[in-house]
Amino acid sequence: MVKGIVHYEVGNQVDIFLLVKSASKGIASNGKPFLTLILQDQSGEIEAKLWDATPEDETSYAAQNIVKILGDVNSYRGKNQLKIRTIRPATDLDGVQLSDFLTVAPIKKDVMADKINQYIFDMKNSNIQRITRHLLKKHQHSFFEYPAATKNHHEFISGLAYHVVSMLDLAKSLATLYPSLDTDLLYSGIILHDLGKVTELSGPVSTSYTIEGNLLGHISIMVNEIGQAAKELGIEGEEITVLQHIVLSHHGKAEWGSPKPPMIKEAEILHYIDNLDAKMNMLDRALERVKPGEFSDRVFALDNRSFYKPTFQN
Amino acid sequence: MVKGIVHYEVGNQVDIFLLVKSASKGIASNGKPFLTLILQDQSGEIEAKLWDATPEDETSYAAQNIVKILGDVNSYRGKNQLKIRTIRPATDLDGVQLSDFLTVAPIKKDVMADKINQYIFDMKNSNIQRITRHLLKKHQHSFFEYPAATKNHHEFISGLAYHVVSMLDLAKSLATLYPSLDTDLLYSGIILHDLGKVTELSGPVSTSYTIEGNLLGHISIMVNEIGQAAKELGIEGEEITVLQHIVLSHHGKAEWGSPKPPMIKEAEILHYIDNLDAKMNMLDRALERVKPGEFSDRVFALDNRSFYKPTFQN
Amino acid sequence: MVKGIVHYEVGNQVDIFLLVKSASKGIASNGKPFLTLILQDQSGEIEAKLWDATPEDETSYAAQNIVKILGDVNSYRGKNQLKIRTIRPATDLDGVQLSDFLTVAPIKKDVMADKINQYIFDMKNSNIQRITRHLLKKHQHSFFEYPAATKNHHEFISGLAYHVVSMLDLAKSLATLYPSLDTDLLYSGIILHDLGKVTELSGPVSTSYTIEGNLLGHISIMVNEIGQAAKELGIEGEEITVLQHIVLSHHGKAEWGSPKPPMIKEAEILHYIDNLDAKMNMLDRALERVKPGEFSDRVFALDNRSFYKPTFQN
Amino acid sequence: MVKGIVHYEVGNQVDIFLLVKSASKGIASNGKPFLTLILQDQSGEIEAKLWDATPEDETSYAAQNIVKILGDVNSYRGKNQLKIRTIRPATDLDGVQLSDFLTVAPIKKDVMADKINQYIFDMKNSNIQRITRHLLKKHQHSFFEYPAATKNHHEFISGLAYHVVSMLDLAKSLATLYPSLDTDLLYSGIILHDLGKVTELSGPVSTSYTIEGNLLGHISIMVNEIGQAAKELGIEGEEITVLQHIVLSHHGKAEWGSPKPPMIKEAEILHYIDNLDAKMNMLDRALERVKPGEFSDRVFALDNRSFYKPTFQN
Amino acid sequence: MVKGIVHYEVGNQVDIFLLVKSASKGIASNGKPFLTLILQDQSGEIEAKLWDATPEDETSYAAQNIVKILGDVNSYRGKNQLKIRTIRPATDLDGVQLSDFLTVAPIKKDVMADKINQYIFDMKNSNIQRITRHLLKKHQHSFFEYPAATKNHHEFISGLAYHVVSMLDLAKSLATLYPSLDTDLLYSGIILHDLGKVTELSGPVSTSYTIEGNLLGHISIMVNEIGQAAKELGIEGEEITVLQHIVLSHHGKAEWGSPKPPMIKEAEILHYIDNLDAKMNMLDRALERVKPGEFSDRVFALDNRSFYKPTFQN
Amino acid sequence: MVKGIVHYEVGNQVDIFLLVKSASKGIASNGKPFLTLILQDQSGEIEAKLWDATPEDETSYAAQNIVKILGDVNSYRGKNQLKIRTIRPATDLDGVQLSDFLTVAPIKKDVMADKINQYIFDMKNSNIQRITRHLLKKHQHSFFEYPAATKNHHEFISGLAYHVVSMLDLAKSLATLYPSLDTDLLYSGIILHDLGKVTELSGPVSTSYTIEGNLLGHISIMVNEIGQAAKELGIEGEEITVLQHIVLSHHGKAEWGSPKPPMIKEAEILHYIDNLDAKMNMLDRALERVKPGEFSDRVFALDNRSFYKPTFQN
Repeated sequence: MVKGIVHYEVGNQVDIFLLVKSASKGIASNGKPFLTLILQDQSGEIEAKLWDATPEDETSYAAQNIVKILGDVNSYRGKNQLKIRTIRPATDLDGVQLSDFLTVAPIKKDVMADKINQYIFDMKNSNIQRITRHLLKKHQHSFFEYPAATKNHHEFISGLAYHVVSMLDLAKSLATLYPSLDTDLLYSGIILHDLGKVTELSGPVSTSYTIEGNLLGHISIMVNEIGQAAKELGIEGEEITVLQHIVLSHHGKAEWGSPKPPMIKEAEILHYIDNLDAKMNMLDRALERVKPGEFSDRVFALDNRSFYKPTFQN
Repeated sequence: MVKGIVHYEVGNQVDIFLLVKSASKGIASNGKPFLTLILQDQSGEIEAKLWDATPEDETSYAAQNIVKILGDVNSYRGKNQLKIRTIRPATDLDGVQLSDFLTVAPIKKDVMADKINQYIFDMKNSNIQRITRHLLKKHQHSFFEYPAATKNHHEFISGLAYHVVSMLDLAKSLATLYPSLDTDLLYSGIILHDLGKVTELSGPVSTSYTIEGNLLGHISIMVNEIGQAAKELGIEGEEITVLQHIVLSHHGKAEWGSPKPPMIKEAEILHYIDNLDAKMNMLDRALERVKPGEFSDRVFALDNRSFYKPTFQN
Repeated sequence: MVKGIVHYEVGNQVDIFLLVKSASKGIASNGKPFLTLILQDQSGEIEAKLWDATPEDETSYAAQNIVKILGDVNSYRGKNQLKIRTIRPATDLDGVQLSDFLTVAPIKKDVMADKINQYIFDMKNSNIQRITRHLLKKHQHSFFEYPAATKNHHEFISGLAYHVVSMLDLAKSLATLYPSLDTDLLYSGIILHDLGKVTELSGPVSTSYTIEGNLLGHISIMVNEIGQAAKELGIEGEEITVLQHIVLSHHGKAEWGSPKPPMIKEAEILHYIDNLDAKMNMLDRALERVKPGEFSDRVFALDNRSFYKPTFQN
Repeated sequence: MVKGIVHYEVGNQVDIFLLVKSASKGIASNGKPFLTLILQDQSGEIEAKLWDATPEDETSYAAQNIVKILGDVNSYRGKNQLKIRTIRPATDLDGVQLSDFLTVAPIKKDVMADKINQYIFDMKNSNIQRITRHLLKKHQHSFFEYPAATKNHHEFISGLAYHVVSMLDLAKSLATLYPSLDTDLLYSGIILHDLGKVTELSGPVSTSYTIEGNLLGHISIMVNEIGQAAKELGIEGEEITVLQHIVLSHHGKAEWGSPKPPMIKEAEILHYIDNLDAKMNMLDRALERVKPGEFSDRVFALDNRSFYKPTFQN
Repeated sequence: MVKGIVHYEVGNQVDIFLLVKSASKGIASNGKPFLTLILQDQSGEIEAKLWDATPEDETSYAAQNIVKILGDVNSYRGKNQLKIRTIRPATDLDGVQLSDFLTVAPIKKDVMADKINQYIFDMKNSNIQRITRHLLKKHQHSFFEYPAATKNHHEFISGLAYHVVSMLDLAKSLATLYPSLDTDLLYSGIILHDLGKVTELSGPVSTSYTIEGNLLGHISIMVNEIGQAAKELGIEGEEITVLQHIVLSHHGKAEWGSPKPPMIKEAEILHYIDNLDAKMNMLDRALERVKPGEFSDRVFALDNRSFYKPTFQN
Repeated sequence: MVKGIVHYEVGNQVDIFLLVKSASKGIASNGKPFLTLILQDQSGEIEAKLWDATPEDETSYAAQNIVKILGDVNSYRGKNQLKIRTIRPATDLDGVQLSDFLTVAPIKKDVMADKINQYIFDMKNSNIQRITRHLLKKHQHSFFEYPAATKNHHEFISGLAYHVVSMLDLAKSLATLYPSLDTDLLYSGIILHDLGKVTELSGPVSTSYTIEGNLLGHISIMVNEIGQAAKELGIEGEEITVLQHIVLSHHGKAEWGSPKPPMIKEAEILHYIDNLDAKMNMLDRALERVKPGEFSDRVFALDNRSFYKPTFQN
């Protein structure tokens, strides 16, 4: 198998296919245009400059194109950069496709869908069950494609569903240890808590924020949808308000984006489960390239801390 | 005219009608029950103890009853307290009624309704106009009865409508000075911004928070209602999202309860207008009993500051 | 079975045995001494005044004595107070003992000891295993008697061991879901993290802080003990520093008392497990006296929030 | 009319006059000196590098000189940069002058002076009136030349006077809606509140802080001047202290530079008016280059927010 | 010598002279007026209730009167209270006077004046010397009478001068160890830094804030006076601005009341010296009644900490 | 004497010996390797690029080598950079040595050792004296070599001992002015407070943090060592806990790294002395290159402030 682009070291020569994640045009000091390309594969990304870019180059190497590059890995301001010797667009003959270059959740969509449906099937409160099933069905396609965030954690294809599945399994373990938990509320809250992201974010690839995402945020979007789903399904009862509250409060504090803090036990616990799964995901990724006896890079979303891998671990 | 209860001084004897705002039972050190009464008139409130209370007293002096009291104003821990000599329930013959004891906005409901309708009538964007009119009509009755808050500012009958009318007039002045403001958005935002309070709060008298108010808050409640109104009226277009955003962001910052900060000019300005009118209301009330050369009591919602009335003002 | 003291309502007469938690002397306005007694049973505590207290009363009703009281439940400043009609010290004939009045963990000490020993037995790294076993053995007696805190959570007999057992079970569940966790480190960290409390706190009953507890705190105390244990056992290796770090960092942030934030994955996760178990304990207790459709009292250690029990839960 | 320099796009060729705002010398990797020029016109500014700079170039292209440049707009690190092909100093024959390149308030100085004098003329309290007139007269020349700040808002020629005039008009509107306001205090406070900036700042062009400005700040400077003006005019009375307080407190909070928070109603309201006018100015400028459906750049002084221009606005 | 009032314990009988610090009237539950007296001697203060107070009592026992009391020390809500058996106003025959009941600095005024004059005499920069001497002379009488604060530290007669003398001595020691310090600036800054308190505070006894003190604060008051002194003395030069800056910045941070932080070395060091002397004064007082092995009361101005006196100290 | 590297200006040619502080390899845009060298002498440091670096260059110019360079001082992004014309490793014939390039404390090690020993000799409490002497002796060699920090203050050879000596002298002055201070505790606390840095830091040159330093910090390291020293010396008594507390609390607040705030008078004062000496050191260095009438660079550890040197100082 081919080595990922982030695993090359300064001085190495590379000869690989990469996906253009973004391309922006500049004009060099010699007056000629050049392109700054961000190139990616499943291992991560690297920057490259394409000097003396022609108008055709701008088209051929626009975002979402796959390219074949021969070049060298340099160091520029402490970060690796790819110096291009030759570049060409990939062709059908190359046998490469978009999905070869994208990171994907480690569990298949079908398997995840089955697991989640089982959790819904097991719910006893039919109001909660119907609303959950209705909203999941409505956004089913996007839900199993979208990442859970644009960066920090679960920012890969199907990351949203994968995060939800991990949280459900964690919730189930907790409910065994602390049997006072209402699993209907907890499972439904987990399935719905980030579902508004399918409206807040632009899509699974080159993900950005939509206008509605910027102005309202995934929390308010989903709180609204729960209200409308209840209306469409003709459901009345406190379950609606409580589910809306759980989604509304799942960031835990006003300054983290929840206008109301958790005031229901399951809302408070969901906030913890969300955090724990996200942090575990970040920690695993921060440490996966670190050797025993070394510190990781600083992780911004973990208060900018470095983590140490003890020498007696391997 | 009768002097208000808060204007009596320690040592004064009083012989007046008062409304029971709340009553709670205790047992005294002699083993007999007593009632702690909070009594109010339009000037404010005072506490009183009714010793050796009979079961009939508990009924006669429950909240919302009007009573006639002969007593003395004492001081207890720095606050005035009413020492009851004789007390009796008011009767029809006394010719007193609930509204005599409640503070009411200084403008009549009809006049306020006319003013607000004129602002709606003047709107040019029909999407904004229709949603605003629809939601105001839906909650019309409560809107003109409710206070704007349970304490701090505009906490009187019709306080909500009065606050909105003051803000609309202020917005109109501003729009003259800064003509780039979109008055449709601004007026609609002002009318809707606190409308969720008719669901968040229990009613115009002895106001408390409803369950829905506690769990969701007036901001999320109204954001949802705008979405549903649009659906019912068959309105589509960015106006919906923008109005939702204005309501969502009107507290200005996440830590003050707005999950998104203002990102539209009119949203930012509405936040200022809201603040300015509320603060002006608080300042006027804090200073109304202060003589030139004196400091007011501390005002909790104004960072617990005291305000000074200069000697050259009168 | 006898009803707990906190379950009586204002106006009820009581005739029960209670433990004197604390007693302090005052002088009444008639010039005579009186005692303020805090009385407790397994359900909680109540205050009582013993007027005209004789010197014998001071001895008979000092802290840690059991008394028989006939009296009435009054309300004073919003809290229940016990008005004493008759009081007498309990005698051997009454057949009551100290442990009848103390709250105890829901699992027996033997069972907890077996569970913890099994976790230690399963450790694979012998350095970690030996230090953990050595320190637990050293403080064994106190560890199974002490509460986990003086208030907020697990503040009952054997609360410390019970908290540790719950955390171990939670850690085991997590390690199944996230197999990258080093269970030796995690289990050892959990067993040791609060062990310094047996030095920081005065004992299982009427718990207060020792001088050493005040000046150094349980975290520094245990970090020191790990170092000394290693010296005594002749153990060298990074495990010592890493275990010290896990204990040192388990409060998560400098402002919460950890001079170093977690920099090892297991340290970070231990902090989460600690929090989750403590919060779950607080939530369960806050909600146990609440009926569906009601809010709990405010819980200081949960940001002073109230929690709502939905009407559809029972 | 010539297009402003900030309106050119990457790849455009320019052939225009610009004012050198600042020039600093460096030595290139070929060992030869070069100049980094910040060039401006009324639309804004752009950076340019002049390579192989001679000693004559250093003189010709020093700050405050006007130059004629033929060049190309490049992109460097996400910001536009001007690549110079040819450059020459402007001559008298070119018919360009300093004021052509500077942004100026939209109202003429004479008109502003008349307005402000009218506000002073209308004051009824002669102590307040005399002090205000005295201090304005003393700093008249600078007051109508200086900007209100070095950046963020009203940072253009006559920006200070323009900000004051806008605030006065806003205060007048408010006083109509809230008649309890003391307009003498409010108008005087507005005229004086930032007058210390004529001492704090170096002048209307290439504005920086003076030593006195750095060490004392415009607030303390003006508080002192009010005291001295009163002494010179032989005025005694509480008006002096109150005006000093209004200036002292106009930043609203200690952490924003006011050692005392507002404790007079007009001081509190002045703080709001100041804020509202400054924010409106920032918002208008942030949005003036934004098309409907787009977000503005982030505005640092508005908590680094972007603002959205709705698609239905134009 | 007579034992101070704070050294009596609950149950003790007292028969002593005390100064009435404040007296306020209330009405008891029997409808009769009573007085709440705060009584003090040099050791501290105690509260007492005078029941059934006559109008003559109100006059005889007003603030600043000396009284003879026979009574008992009770405990009320954890604080000592004096139960009055008999009370009478002191007469000339009693031979007691106001100063017997007030705490006074441990050094005589004359001695302090000589020390400070010597520090001024030794200054080499005549501008600094003249301004310092002028301002000290202007406020000489009050300066040697006033306390340094109304509470927390040096809140006794001549406390201001005593604090200044201690700071000067400390500054002299520092200047020996760190010879780069400019002693003229440092000594002058110390003498002037709190001199505005003679205007901010009402006087040496029953000290409160003046209107000017409330609205401007001692810092701004003294910054103004330095400016006026320079004008009167015809002094020009940067010394004026620098001395104003030192006074302005001596609280160290904006949130502590200094609109500018120290930007001169001596200003920074003065802030430290001020702090160190104030904290030392608070620590000594907090610990003076504590026995070895005990913790002091919490000290509000020291972050509400308790301090421990080690058992090996005596 | 040769001019220090930081005193050269842009455009100057240099021909001097420098120590390589660090060297890191990159690959240039021409595909060839280059070295980024940080070069230092006693005056400070400068960056240089060595283009087309051979493998031999990597060895010859690794950290800790001394080099002879002919080059020019350029400016790059506002900082000086050294453009290398010729470079060669120093040889024995050059007569230069490591210590020529390192900053050293202004007092000799012997003199400092004598002073500290005298302070220990003068202690009266033998427990405190023995522990202090034991720990100083144990780390004697490193203690007199290490810096007090990696940056900010006293970051030079023997900086740690120099900081301790200055603090001791300052403590002695204070103890004269405030005789209630326990000098045994204070002197011992000062000698031990930062002694853990000899374990936390890697060494006197190219200082970085050790693993143990990162995971535990110098405070916890020394608290542990005090406990072990007591055990080894067979000392029991509260002195141990108190000394541990003084070291533990010397950063003053939890958020600054002290899990317990000072709760002993001498602990509080030590925190002030530490701060005062560190700040004085930073201030002197910030101002030493500043001319009268100028502001210094911003000092990060002094809240990023600039300091002004008055024109009347020289």
